[in-house]
Amino acid sequence: MRNLLLTISFDGTDYHGWQVQENAVTVQQTLQDAFERICSSRDNVVGCSRTDAGVHANMYCCNIRTENPITCEKLVGALNALLPRDIAALDCREVDFGFHARYDCKSKEYIYKIWNSPNKNPFLYDYSLHYKPRLDEEFLSRQAADFIGTYDFASFCAAGSSVEDTVRTVMNASVEREGDMVIFKVEADGFLYNMVRIMTGTLIDISRGKIPADSIKQIIAAKNRFAAGYTAPARGLYLNKIHY
Amino acid sequence: MRNLLLTISFDGTDYHGWQVQENAVTVQQTLQDAFERICSSRDNVVGCSRTDAGVHANMYCCNIRTENPITCEKLVGALNALLPRDIAALDCREVDFGFHARYDCKSKEYIYKIWNSPNKNPFLYDYSLHYKPRLDEEFLSRQAADFIGTYDFASFCAAGSSVEDTVRTVMNASVEREGDMVIFKVEADGFLYNMVRIMTGTLIDISRGKIPADSIKQIIAAKNRFAAGYTAPARGLYLNKIHY
Repeated sequence: MRNLLLTISFDGTDYHGWQVQENAVTVQQTLQDAFERICSSRDNVVGCSRTDAGVHANMYCCNIRTENPITCEKLVGALNALLPRDIAALDCREVDFGFHARYDCKSKEYIYKIWNSPNKNPFLYDYSLHYKPRLDEEFLSRQAADFIGTYDFASFCAAGSSVEDTVRTVMNASVEREGDMVIFKVEADGFLYNMVRIMTGTLIDISRGKIPADSIKQIIAAKNRFAAGYTAPARGLYLNKIHY
Repeated sequence: MRNLLLTISFDGTDYHGWQVQENAVTVQQTLQDAFERICSSRDNVVGCSRTDAGVHANMYCCNIRTENPITCEKLVGALNALLPRDIAALDCREVDFGFHARYDCKSKEYIYKIWNSPNKNPFLYDYSLHYKPRLDEEFLSRQAADFIGTYDFASFCAAGSSVEDTVRTVMNASVEREGDMVIFKVEADGFLYNMVRIMTGTLIDISRGKIPADSIKQIIAAKNRFAAGYTAPARGLYLNKIHY
């Protein structure tokens, strides 16, 4: 039995997230169907993380355990020929049989894109949050730095999550600007449900004075979802890097 | 009667080009419908150019002659609220009654985007041509410079065009690279049907050796569509600037 580590990227606009669901098109389902057509075997694809509907991935990893002898190069080519235009296979390599795309992940990086311009951009609606007032990216980057550390991030976890341990380690958090695009970047050993979207909403609420500056440490200490800001929409969020 | 010069941008993916057609959704139709809902008058919107189905515009100008006293600022806001996400109103100003968005245009700039990477990009299918072999942008820019000048561009006009005078002046033509994106940029006093798409296809055919290097002057001189390269798809083409 072989274990293949597959790296893909996808535009999540038309998907109900990664994970297989009844009555909804998901990335995992689409990938498994393509794999089945290529290899004539129904092998389970294990993803590195669940992603919400509308969330994108510049990089997403999954592993497939299969008896099929197809070469990695052929599999990538065949997947790209069969997959729809909004999912791309980028790389494939054989890994130890015990490797698990989710459990062996050391850290993940997400980015959140904010189109920060008074002008509507017809190309970016599904790919960013449009926020018109000018954001001060240096100020926001100093605010975001307060996310760095090992904390109980319960304030940044959506209600309804079944996770019990809400302690996570954030290694990096910063905000930068590329022209009219402001990008919040955060790396952690794991993320809670809606964590990056609530972090982004909190930074925006700080920017517009709804939440005081320099209060992120207090919001974390509150361990209460109501202490944090709003949940920014899924469409600006991208899984960006996976470290094993 | 006022004459308003409106600047918009649009993602052309879901439109059958600019011009009103029966049984097809076009940008002009969508804009006229929105204007009618705002101003309760059915005024004709005159565009700076026809664009093909699937062609995008970073900048597109049109003028509207209307009796309505709405301020330019309010019109832009109301249009952005009413228009679908893939059309944006960027600016509006009042101009002389005689101003005509098409006839008064001194030059237009188009860009053609080529995603030049061995990897499929799930975000760019509708927004570029995917070409895998590495393009030499400096070589192609020297080739493209041969388009500059006043010539009969009949070789770069799609069959079936009813235009009689195929002489145009190209002021600028160059190729540049931004990471994995190669961009062909061309400015002219006017463009023939499919002209930029045939120019792009010709540059790609030169790149892959189907057409010899340094033959653009000869292709122009041939005044024959069959002398030029293939027609690159609409989805990589953007109207980029309009000069009045």
